[in-house]
Amino acid sequence: MQITPGKILAQINSPEDLRKRDRSELLQICDELRQYIIDNVSVYGGHFGASLGVVELSVALHYVFNTPDDQLIWDVGHQAYGHKILTGRKDSFHSNRLYGGISGFPKRKESPYDAFGVGHSSTSISAALGMAVASKYKGENHRQHIAVIGDGSMTAGMAFEAMNHAGDIPNNMLIVLNDNCMAIDPNVGALKEYLTDITTSHTYNRVKDEVWNLLGKMSNFGKSAQEIVSKIENGLKATLLKQSNLFESLNLRYFGPIDGHDVEYLATVLNDLKDIPGPKILHCITTKGKGYALAEKDQTLWHAPGKFDKITGEIKKKVHATPQPPKYQDVFGHTIVELAEQNPKIMGVTPAMPSGSSLNIMMKAMPHRAFDVGIAEQHAVTFSAGMATQGLTVFCNIYSTFMQRAFDQVVHDVAIQELPVIFCLDRAGFAGADGPTHHGAYDIAYMRCIPNMIVFSPMNEQELRNIMFTTSLDDFKELKQAISIRYPRGEGVMPNWKTPFEKMEIGKGRKIKDGEKVALLTLGHIGNYAVKACEELAKEGINPAHYDMRFVKPLDEAMLHEIFQNYDKVITVEDGCLQGGFGSAVAEFMLDHDYSAQIKRLGIPDRIVEHGEQIELHKECGFDPEGIAQAVRDILGREKVVHSSNVVNLTMN
Amino acid sequence: MQITPGKILAQINSPEDLRKRDRSELLQICDELRQYIIDNVSVYGGHFGASLGVVELSVALHYVFNTPDDQLIWDVGHQAYGHKILTGRKDSFHSNRLYGGISGFPKRKESPYDAFGVGHSSTSISAALGMAVASKYKGENHRQHIAVIGDGSMTAGMAFEAMNHAGDIPNNMLIVLNDNCMAIDPNVGALKEYLTDITTSHTYNRVKDEVWNLLGKMSNFGKSAQEIVSKIENGLKATLLKQSNLFESLNLRYFGPIDGHDVEYLATVLNDLKDIPGPKILHCITTKGKGYALAEKDQTLWHAPGKFDKITGEIKKKVHATPQPPKYQDVFGHTIVELAEQNPKIMGVTPAMPSGSSLNIMMKAMPHRAFDVGIAEQHAVTFSAGMATQGLTVFCNIYSTFMQRAFDQVVHDVAIQELPVIFCLDRAGFAGADGPTHHGAYDIAYMRCIPNMIVFSPMNEQELRNIMFTTSLDDFKELKQAISIRYPRGEGVMPNWKTPFEKMEIGKGRKIKDGEKVALLTLGHIGNYAVKACEELAKEGINPAHYDMRFVKPLDEAMLHEIFQNYDKVITVEDGCLQGGFGSAVAEFMLDHDYSAQIKRLGIPDRIVEHGEQIELHKECGFDPEGIAQAVRDILGREKVVHSSNVVNLTMN
Repeated sequence: MQITPGKILAQINSPEDLRKRDRSELLQICDELRQYIIDNVSVYGGHFGASLGVVELSVALHYVFNTPDDQLIWDVGHQAYGHKILTGRKDSFHSNRLYGGISGFPKRKESPYDAFGVGHSSTSISAALGMAVASKYKGENHRQHIAVIGDGSMTAGMAFEAMNHAGDIPNNMLIVLNDNCMAIDPNVGALKEYLTDITTSHTYNRVKDEVWNLLGKMSNFGKSAQEIVSKIENGLKATLLKQSNLFESLNLRYFGPIDGHDVEYLATVLNDLKDIPGPKILHCITTKGKGYALAEKDQTLWHAPGKFDKITGEIKKKVHATPQPPKYQDVFGHTIVELAEQNPKIMGVTPAMPSGSSLNIMMKAMPHRAFDVGIAEQHAVTFSAGMATQGLTVFCNIYSTFMQRAFDQVVHDVAIQELPVIFCLDRAGFAGADGPTHHGAYDIAYMRCIPNMIVFSPMNEQELRNIMFTTSLDDFKELKQAISIRYPRGEGVMPNWKTPFEKMEIGKGRKIKDGEKVALLTLGHIGNYAVKACEELAKEGINPAHYDMRFVKPLDEAMLHEIFQNYDKVITVEDGCLQGGFGSAVAEFMLDHDYSAQIKRLGIPDRIVEHGEQIELHKECGFDPEGIAQAVRDILGREKVVHSSNVVNLTMN
Repeated sequence: MQITPGKILAQINSPEDLRKRDRSELLQICDELRQYIIDNVSVYGGHFGASLGVVELSVALHYVFNTPDDQLIWDVGHQAYGHKILTGRKDSFHSNRLYGGISGFPKRKESPYDAFGVGHSSTSISAALGMAVASKYKGENHRQHIAVIGDGSMTAGMAFEAMNHAGDIPNNMLIVLNDNCMAIDPNVGALKEYLTDITTSHTYNRVKDEVWNLLGKMSNFGKSAQEIVSKIENGLKATLLKQSNLFESLNLRYFGPIDGHDVEYLATVLNDLKDIPGPKILHCITTKGKGYALAEKDQTLWHAPGKFDKITGEIKKKVHATPQPPKYQDVFGHTIVELAEQNPKIMGVTPAMPSGSSLNIMMKAMPHRAFDVGIAEQHAVTFSAGMATQGLTVFCNIYSTFMQRAFDQVVHDVAIQELPVIFCLDRAGFAGADGPTHHGAYDIAYMRCIPNMIVFSPMNEQELRNIMFTTSLDDFKELKQAISIRYPRGEGVMPNWKTPFEKMEIGKGRKIKDGEKVALLTLGHIGNYAVKACEELAKEGINPAHYDMRFVKPLDEAMLHEIFQNYDKVITVEDGCLQGGFGSAVAEFMLDHDYSAQIKRLGIPDRIVEHGEQIELHKECGFDPEGIAQAVRDILGREKVVHSSNVVNLTMN
């Protein structure tokens, strides 16, 4: 279904079309753009509130700047729907985030208007500065470079690093601070308070203006007063103008705050800023979800609500006749509270993903023991390490893809120091519709190369609960190792998931079934695909063994000896990269122990895999249930049996 | 040789001893401590200027605070020599940085006074906050937590992330900002300018005081003036006190700047700060190298000068009769300039390691094309990516161990976007005396799992020059891949290293010699050990083949087919972790292509390897020349032949 755009929007197929319109039409264009986003997302799903919040910014920026020659970089990029619609992707927008469709984030391959690919936060200032410096070096002095970054993204250290550099070298970059007091959850941290302060009652500008006005009145008190006024003024200029603003401390000229929903005023201000040299920041106040009342009211829920009825606001949920398995996220969120109620040492940490990780359950139940530290993975890990030195039991929950931001801290602050921090790597494996920037493809490889690191993945809810229980016990600390517990986005397999806790043995796998000739070794949830594959293969008279290895590190060596002594064909399956992953660990074991089985490794191949439903991507990469079954057939030299009521074709080489 | 400490220092074996001394003795204790550091480092080598700069801070902190119950965290930690000497390691200090000796950095295993292990920068605030929060939670309200961090370390985003959190939650942490305007090289960035501003002519405090004084005088002008003054004052308080300081913007109470070399005043101020609740920062101005005139004058040279004559200041260098091979660092530094002189597209980037990486040669020769971005690896990578989008050829030089800080940016901003950034990973493999925090052990594993990433290591100077030349050519960009070029700290093997440039073929290895039965596959400089091993083995009649594989990714598949078709015993050698490294890549190839050779992988084992000379560590891990030779003997089932003039024992199984 193609959504029909409004009258003017229908005629805008590029920013050039937009720039031909009269300024008086901008308001209507914003209305139509906002409506087009609501119409599309309500039908097709996707991110919602963030794009509604920057409708006016999107229109004003493309109206004022000469994109794509002027380069516009959206931080994170989930707010760029308006930008996409204005830059030639209106008609393909219904394919947003679908397999084979356009990406939910800016992407260089997709459009010249997408100056820099994004997905993770806080990269835009660095990228824009690189572009600005390059343009300057090449003598392209007419080109403008604009980074649009939210106040949530500003909490990541990388943004600070970039501003520290931007304020120190010649460039004309413009940073638009899109301040809506939100990340996915409400933004946290001292910076947020500061931005609120300068925006609300004691606004920086108001104080500045007031003092200026009062000093003006002072001059009525005669010459000696005037001299004093002049001295104060000089002193104030030094402090107020140069130092009184956090951004000006970093030598970025600060403008604002202004209303980010007044499109005409935005266009005027942006146009003025074009001519102001040097690095500068424009502070815009916006409302996430602007123009859709429910989204303004519950901004976290409406960050990415899924499909909904745009009239009633009812979010569409699948209705199931029978109880369904919970999300791994919720198993984590409820289980940590369950454990923490019994064990006062347990603490929880998340970098800005309380609702995504379900740590919000603990934050609500025991606010002094669960911390949202902002978009700050590096700090999250070392803060956890600091707590661990004091004997606390810290569950640090970070998405696999975002843990890439804290790799050094895992090595340097946790593993080298033998601190028993418990890392829960959420959204490990293919993330789904968020695509390549969000796939948790690499964590097995980058975690298992670190000494003093246990790498585990649960095949179901019970294994997740039991490993959380096991690592929360005091004797886990005696191992002097950290652990990475990786699990995927989405549902497990156990509708009755709240099983009693059982202690697991570290480094012990589980044999699911014996078999003949070939052994399937799986890691984590993807093992359930192997179960299905085995069921299918059984119909064809093929009977592979299946082992849920659970631990990539330490490997269950006793089990592997059993496997390599009994099977000369082994297939490993993992929802992670093939280079250096679980399969490679099994291969290393085999070679180190002088076995020589044939090993086929299934997993994420050495290329960037695009977005789509998880199952679509698993299929594409050959490790959906049918892909696993086919791998078994292939290694046995068997052909697939097509079932029919009477005929069974069984071909053997 | 044991250095004799001064009279009072001789009696101080712990901070408790220090705290018993009269305050009037602190000055002499500082003198003696400083002298002890000079005496030791001049004889044994090590870091120098940083520890001299914090002698007074070290004494004052341990004098005032109840360490180790109060927890003191030194950021980076190369400045902690005074701390080590005061905390029970005076008599073992001569073993500093030596194999088997004490670490050059604070280390939890070494002393209860080392509250947190360090080495990399900017972790101290996060760690101290974690400890402070844990203490508070545990009701240990008497405990103090102090992070000592340099202005250089403040440029890393992680420090900002931690301050943003610290200013937002209840804690009493003290941050001591040790501001000496230096990292290893002069500190850079807008923050540095800001700190200089508030320290020098327009100091924040002076302006504040002046305005306050002037407002006082105003009250002479009668009632209406007084009202105005009162209004101004309120306004100023709002801005000046709450917002006029970058740190106060983040809700950290700011004190200072004060003279960090006035030990008695420091003690007074620190004592006062104990009772001030909430997170706070004390800004101390210090001089790196304080008290040793030459070190004060050339602070970069004297950061870690090696052994020197403490009287004349002459730095001791080995004298060689013949020309020696250059350091890989210098080959990089001179070669990038040589290439950039011919190719205007070439740019260079380093995060705060201009002298360490030798990019300082380019920064001097072409300052607009070489950037020191501060201790900011994340920004360094994405800034490079931004420049690369504009068609520039960017060499981004980051130590292997520090690249761990930018792993996400390599994946997200470079690899996913197919940007041809050229990463030079300096100090890959064992770093030597700096120890485990600085070993570049993991980069092969964490780089080769990333799609669109070439992984290369040169065996000698010529290969480094040629790969730099090759990747600087425009047709390299057509591959749409980035490259990681890893090389070790220290000297290569070619005294005449300035060879003419030759284009290399990406993914092509080099056969060094044919052989019998067993093939040695080496990666990078460590291949020279294999050459020596082969020379030794030849005397025993053992003749392995030797291949310099050059590329971990893409592997030279033609060469590997040749190898596996001709040899059923393969030994891989790498100066990197065994889990997921080069040897595993070779194993993956073998299994993917259904070969079944016996593979023995030599490299860094799965444990934390401590500090020592590189060759000592290689020996410990079994891949020094003799270790490699022994691995060949072992795989052949041969015993080592002991050479003597008449007897040759050749035992074969």
